[in-house]
Amino acid sequence: MADHGVPALRWEEPREGPVLVLLDQTRLPAEEAELVCADVSALVAAIRTLSVRGAPLLGVAGGYGVALAAVRGWDVADAADRLATARPTAVNLGAGVRRVERSYRAAVDGGAGKERAGAVALAEARALHQEDAEASARMGELGRELLDELLPTGRLRILTHCNSGILVSGGKGTAFGVITELHRAGELRRLWVDETRPLLQGARLTAYEAAREGMPYSVLADSAAGSLFSAGEVDAVLIGADRIAADGSVANKVGSYPLAVLARYHRVPFVVVAPVTTLDAATERGADIVVEQRPAREVTEFTLPDPSGSGAESGAGVPVAPVGADAYNPAFDVTPPELVTAIVTERGVISPVTREAVAELCSPSPTRESRSGNGMMNS
Amino acid sequence: MADHGVPALRWEEPREGPVLVLLDQTRLPAEEAELVCADVSALVAAIRTLSVRGAPLLGVAGGYGVALAAVRGWDVADAADRLATARPTAVNLGAGVRRVERSYRAAVDGGAGKERAGAVALAEARALHQEDAEASARMGELGRELLDELLPTGRLRILTHCNSGILVSGGKGTAFGVITELHRAGELRRLWVDETRPLLQGARLTAYEAAREGMPYSVLADSAAGSLFSAGEVDAVLIGADRIAADGSVANKVGSYPLAVLARYHRVPFVVVAPVTTLDAATERGADIVVEQRPAREVTEFTLPDPSGSGAESGAGVPVAPVGADAYNPAFDVTPPELVTAIVTERGVISPVTREAVAELCSPSPTRESRSGNGMMNS
Repeated sequence: MADHGVPALRWEEPREGPVLVLLDQTRLPAEEAELVCADVSALVAAIRTLSVRGAPLLGVAGGYGVALAAVRGWDVADAADRLATARPTAVNLGAGVRRVERSYRAAVDGGAGKERAGAVALAEARALHQEDAEASARMGELGRELLDELLPTGRLRILTHCNSGILVSGGKGTAFGVITELHRAGELRRLWVDETRPLLQGARLTAYEAAREGMPYSVLADSAAGSLFSAGEVDAVLIGADRIAADGSVANKVGSYPLAVLARYHRVPFVVVAPVTTLDAATERGADIVVEQRPAREVTEFTLPDPSGSGAESGAGVPVAPVGADAYNPAFDVTPPELVTAIVTERGVISPVTREAVAELCSPSPTRESRSGNGMMNS
Repeated sequence: MADHGVPALRWEEPREGPVLVLLDQTRLPAEEAELVCADVSALVAAIRTLSVRGAPLLGVAGGYGVALAAVRGWDVADAADRLATARPTAVNLGAGVRRVERSYRAAVDGGAGKERAGAVALAEARALHQEDAEASARMGELGRELLDELLPTGRLRILTHCNSGILVSGGKGTAFGVITELHRAGELRRLWVDETRPLLQGARLTAYEAAREGMPYSVLADSAAGSLFSAGEVDAVLIGADRIAADGSVANKVGSYPLAVLARYHRVPFVVVAPVTTLDAATERGADIVVEQRPAREVTEFTLPDPSGSGAESGAGVPVAPVGADAYNPAFDVTPPELVTAIVTERGVISPVTREAVAELCSPSPTRESRSGNGMMNS
């Protein structure tokens, strides 16, 4: 996507010293505003206010934040602590921060001077970014191959939910990365973009990414997807995942499961695209996934974008339900493996989705590589 | 509902002369404001700006509008023409207007003076209102009996979509009327209210009606319904209908069909409640129903309630998608008869839903009455 507009994140080295430049996601889709973070405090603030968000992208941003402190000669341990805790529940953020901090510490322990150790830290952050981009690219290829097999007629109409592209990833993203591959190959007839209530990540962010890529796309109320299936206007559903249990159950943004049921009823492939880091062997079954309940006001109020840019969630809410209305507002839902046609990862494709196939993909055994040569695992 | 708060519409006769008092639906749920219509122009404006809406209720309002002109001694033919065309596509509005106009004309033709003919017109408007209320009450009873049969355990958790209560009817409404019956009988454990994007009639209007009745209710994003089914939290789905084809296909607010598919997947009854006037013998099959596509901006912009009260659709829109985004925005969807457990009308219940059962209910044959004695037609 970097070749089609403002990237979600980039490292720059102007004369005044290195900086991390972020696309301010709180201003989308109205404005493509860039936030220049010249110090750790600015980056911590950007993470807190959701100017930068999305699990893999947060890891990359955190890694660059540590590199920024190291290259500029500041206190790296202090920077790492502040960055890692900027959003307490973001696992990838802490992982990216600690990885770059470890590489800096190892360089220092190995006798490198501050300047050399700073260069090592930056190289590690760039490597993290690069790996994430490569995983996206590989998922894009494997996903496109899978769709070629499943739907050889081509010129597909794809339905997606929530946001899974450059705004959450160091590369082209997960489901949206596959869609971008299809589009660039001339194989995308239309992208149907679920608006994704209550926070509208589809209308706000996925539609923005689709417009940037020049894709033919339409936004729809989530509940209008049924009409599209009914009219035969959906060839496949592609979504990302927040977490995949050991049995292949997929936790993703609320509204994914109803699409899986509709897809099954209409015999349309339902494909999940996610990096292997999403596979969580410690969670046995879908029923073990604890679903976060979010505040009622996300449903009962419409939150205006905040023109001050101080954070998309802090704007004034306009009530759309009676004062005091209760709301049921789960953050995500869980789709059982029997409704998932395939899971595309950067290591290969799992189809059919079984506990054994998930375990095999997670294991580092060399036999797996040979079996998944065509991107399909038919175990 | 008249015993629980402001009615949607009422005829009053203060010293200054008769008036029609409307609950201004554009101000809900923030305010229960009443609009007093002392002349035909005020009522035409209220209809145009959607202060009063909902097919059966518009018919009642139009009928009272003609009565207002007749009782006050104004030009009845002119009033009827202006009212009947206030919203060109509202069939019930024209029907209500013409029915009361005919009764006035018949009285005049029969030699009645203006005052006497005015009284006849008012009596006809009241009769129309009363019939609508009685149909609601009967649907409420039959619907509750049906649920008692289908789900004898009681204490039900009902999911509904859009708005089908006092705000669209001269009585307690269709699906919401049944829910009110359940609630008053102590049989409603919880009402799940789909917010009903894009225009949020569920969050704005159904939640308002549920709060007025003191029901235990929760609003949800439409796509969160899947999680409720998955968790076993839905005992039945109850919705209204815009139109029912001769084969039993049900056209209703977009988002109804996905609920029918989810209900089938989870073996939950899906019940449609609608007056016999909704049964359209002239439309052979669901596929023959032409689906209205509504403006993209209903999806791509959030429309603020207009504090001036000049109409809910005229407020300023806040963009939630990129400028120029296309949207797919069908007004309703069509659920095929095989997914509908039952259709509840004031004349009886159709279950299973077949072309023959629909035809039999529509026919005025006396044998039908005896067969539907228990509210069920098992033809």
